[in-house]
Amino acid sequence: MKKLINDVSNVLTESLDGFVAAHGDIITLGAEHKFVQRRVLKPGKVALLSGGGSGHEPLHAGFVGHGMLDAACPGQVFTSPTPDQMIAAAEAVDTGAGVLFIVKNYEGDVMNFDMAREMAGRDIETVITDDDVAVENSLYTTGRRGVAGTLVVEKVVGAAAEQGADLRALKQLGDRVNRATRSMGVALTSCTVPAAGKPTFDMGPTEMEMGVGIHGEPGRRRVALRSADEIAEEMVAAIAGDLKAKGNALFFVNGFGGTPAMELYLMYNAAAAQLAKHGITPVRSLVGSYVTSLDMAGCSITVTMLDDEITKGWDAPVHTPALRWGL
Amino acid sequence: MKKLINDVSNVLTESLDGFVAAHGDIITLGAEHKFVQRRVLKPGKVALLSGGGSGHEPLHAGFVGHGMLDAACPGQVFTSPTPDQMIAAAEAVDTGAGVLFIVKNYEGDVMNFDMAREMAGRDIETVITDDDVAVENSLYTTGRRGVAGTLVVEKVVGAAAEQGADLRALKQLGDRVNRATRSMGVALTSCTVPAAGKPTFDMGPTEMEMGVGIHGEPGRRRVALRSADEIAEEMVAAIAGDLKAKGNALFFVNGFGGTPAMELYLMYNAAAAQLAKHGITPVRSLVGSYVTSLDMAGCSITVTMLDDEITKGWDAPVHTPALRWGL
Repeated sequence: MKKLINDVSNVLTESLDGFVAAHGDIITLGAEHKFVQRRVLKPGKVALLSGGGSGHEPLHAGFVGHGMLDAACPGQVFTSPTPDQMIAAAEAVDTGAGVLFIVKNYEGDVMNFDMAREMAGRDIETVITDDDVAVENSLYTTGRRGVAGTLVVEKVVGAAAEQGADLRALKQLGDRVNRATRSMGVALTSCTVPAAGKPTFDMGPTEMEMGVGIHGEPGRRRVALRSADEIAEEMVAAIAGDLKAKGNALFFVNGFGGTPAMELYLMYNAAAAQLAKHGITPVRSLVGSYVTSLDMAGCSITVTMLDDEITKGWDAPVHTPALRWGL
Repeated sequence: MKKLINDVSNVLTESLDGFVAAHGDIITLGAEHKFVQRRVLKPGKVALLSGGGSGHEPLHAGFVGHGMLDAACPGQVFTSPTPDQMIAAAEAVDTGAGVLFIVKNYEGDVMNFDMAREMAGRDIETVITDDDVAVENSLYTTGRRGVAGTLVVEKVVGAAAEQGADLRALKQLGDRVNRATRSMGVALTSCTVPAAGKPTFDMGPTEMEMGVGIHGEPGRRRVALRSADEIAEEMVAAIAGDLKAKGNALFFVNGFGGTPAMELYLMYNAAAAQLAKHGITPVRSLVGSYVTSLDMAGCSITVTMLDDEITKGWDAPVHTPALRWGL
């Protein structure tokens, strides 16, 4: 294993220390590294709280700030955060208007956020994201997995929260954005969890995993390495077939951590041509490594069908470590 | 070789097509893929023009837009663009106030930008960046290499150009920012050039290259894999020893393309502790993969000593595909 780390047991805390040092104008760190929160809270605004296993950076802590999340709870690598983290974070950021949990659909995360909701003694709603069309159930999941589309939910709901929407309205909006969003991923290499010290799975030099999950969990099938065009064709067909919609969309090409921008833009080009065949027109775009799987090579594509409300939420100003515009 | 590509001979053009499709609100593509330019030019402003071999994305095309570059010329992977590209780009973006070339110090780039300057028949000045302290001469370089510090030069000079500074003033400012800037890199793996199909150099599973260049060219020496703290100590000592300055700085941790955010932030933490020992205080920060070497794992660190003018230039609004704030 080759990584820029010190002791494997301190990877998360040292990385978080660097993160808050680099972005101290936007965020602060809660006690015992339990959560990252917005430096300046907005009284009367519903607090948005997310979290999950680490290793997907910048998700979620990179999306804490004006126009997106109020707090994020980082678990150990690929491990759910614990209910006491969420309870402490909710306590820190709830200014009286309630708290919305945004949770990717993995059994550990859903269970722990549910427990936190029951124990916190606050007004809390939960949006579960499950945008991955690759498989119906998976290694850590009952139902579909929540993947890169979670960013879109956090952005659009974050904008509405900033505008003063109440907790019930935000819960409805979050569910609606999730339903308008589909993703699928492909891996060319495995990731390596620091504490494990070796790749999560074996993959031959001419193989790829179609429909891979963001923890390297299996997708639809292992296939021989294909061209970008062929990969894009299958991923877009799966997404468009499931969406059953035509029209304007947000199109998001996401790198898994080990794939450079040059390949992501080439995939954007390949997939945009496929979207056109299905009557889907990208009118908003995001390209970059935002929902990662440590050092895994590969990418996912995410399509969110746009209406006026979702477009307005996407375009709204945002000021976080990883996404910033209009401010 | 595992990459998200189609035909290796079309990697650059297909990636550029995706790039302009994704960022068509900011940029347009010149004829024959010769350059990327700002969609909206500002008459009377000095035009900033950069370029170099591809494979370092988002550098330079990702920095075209308000507050940074007016145009960027992409060469083939790790190959200088040709003078006709620069001449065509200068023709497209010069609104009468002259053109500033910003060129990383590699022999091919310097020669071709020089030739373009002679042939273009315009008022052109050139800033050469050479921020890499690792080696004095290198495989493609007489003198020090221009690496990630080039981003800082483009940002600060871009801001001054936007404010109306004239060509001579911008040339002076660019040289000054370059002199205030030092970088050094480390590689854990080689990159793989698509057309070559195999890693540029061999590196054992427990080795790393200290002082690597952004084309994978050799650095100071090959050493056994070290901890992040040890790597940071050597890189910061080399930079601080060369800068011979204390005080406030911009601190930039740059990923080479195959290294995830989690490790970059851990390196930020490790290196910030070393900077403190040398009396250098990061008051501005940038962390991400901005000046890459295709899929190489590793990172560089860059320090720019700040004064009021450089700080103001860094903080100024920018709206490009890869860097955006204040707009």
